[in-house]
Amino acid sequence: MRIGVFGTGVVGSTIASKLVERGHEVMMGSRTRDNDKAVAWTRKAGERASQGAFEDAASFGEVLFNCTGGTVSVAALEQAGAEAMGNKILLDLANPLAFVPGELPTLTVLNTDSVGEQIQRAFPRLRVVKTLNTMNTMIMVNPRAVPGDHNVFLSGNDADAKAQVAGWLDEWFGWKRESIIDLGDITSARGVEMVLPLWLRLMVTFKTPMFNFHVVRAPAS
Amino acid sequence: MRIGVFGTGVVGSTIASKLVERGHEVMMGSRTRDNDKAVAWTRKAGERASQGAFEDAASFGEVLFNCTGGTVSVAALEQAGAEAMGNKILLDLANPLAFVPGELPTLTVLNTDSVGEQIQRAFPRLRVVKTLNTMNTMIMVNPRAVPGDHNVFLSGNDADAKAQVAGWLDEWFGWKRESIIDLGDITSARGVEMVLPLWLRLMVTFKTPMFNFHVVRAPAS
Repeated sequence: MRIGVFGTGVVGSTIASKLVERGHEVMMGSRTRDNDKAVAWTRKAGERASQGAFEDAASFGEVLFNCTGGTVSVAALEQAGAEAMGNKILLDLANPLAFVPGELPTLTVLNTDSVGEQIQRAFPRLRVVKTLNTMNTMIMVNPRAVPGDHNVFLSGNDADAKAQVAGWLDEWFGWKRESIIDLGDITSARGVEMVLPLWLRLMVTFKTPMFNFHVVRAPAS
Repeated sequence: MRIGVFGTGVVGSTIASKLVERGHEVMMGSRTRDNDKAVAWTRKAGERASQGAFEDAASFGEVLFNCTGGTVSVAALEQAGAEAMGNKILLDLANPLAFVPGELPTLTVLNTDSVGEQIQRAFPRLRVVKTLNTMNTMIMVNPRAVPGDHNVFLSGNDADAKAQVAGWLDEWFGWKRESIIDLGDITSARGVEMVLPLWLRLMVTFKTPMFNFHVVRAPAS
């Protein structure tokens, strides 16, 4: 499959590398063509890897990943262009974190809105599925890095798109179907984005990002 | 031990009943003496149960539980009175949820503040420990209602108070020490309060509140 990955950071390059490893053709998109980090990534990732501007990756990909920072995602996707993205499925991994030196990041969008919703509003035809934003990147692409059961969430308005994404999470990254929790429409992205402050505290407490949330249910009574 | 429980709702009465069951003398506090729900609770809970105004419960308790709604907690505690509460330990279970008919509740305090912090700022001598707010009341007082490992969090500025609370969570409610995660100072209450939107979505998705979060860690590498 041809996949467009927006973002050249740790999340974008880890996701993009894993997709290349799985045999896909992946274009990493960034603000400008020949971005240093994107070029370095293509050299490392091999012949199925390419890079370009956001609009190039948007046209190239049959499926799209938003791995840009949540505070700049809508701007990045505006550059990618509504027409190039069309009604493709976009997996949105972004968190709207504002980084302040010496403090834990806070959220810039929350409570009555989310990045997932902002994107869906800005691009009504795009099929946005919020997912994978509640864990470290190493765990996103390798859930077995954390032992036992733990979860990944899906939020989105299009049931078919969520079913597709659930299949890809399994096939591409190894997420067992029973670990995937569909939270409902895109407004449920608020819940998963607002988990970040707890996630950040846990990372400070544990001195490692290698953990994930498992929702444990009581047996039906 | 003599314990004061602020709040006559489901959380307050479940906590208070369990504490009576454990042999403690418990006074339920509310805005006015002889509140109907408080009186009804004392009749059901038996001879170690009593009720009064917030200020009565504050004076009575050697330890205090805040089970009022998070949007009115500071006002309730102002009525309880800084002098009566002194430097006692207050377990704060409140979530600042604004209820809107037909919608999922949103938070009224978040991101750069929390109810836990509001209370600690308003009553600097009080030893506030935020805990138990991330799960259904039935699970708070009976963690075995959910199988296997799952967690309860502690946030507070006073290490001794948190150690005491950890002991009480074990002794009174059955929380194993290894299930209790100390997140640090009271500002970490932001993280646990901001989990509520996800918790509420999960409740809608599962059609039951009988679940809890487990933070699963990778083995140290």
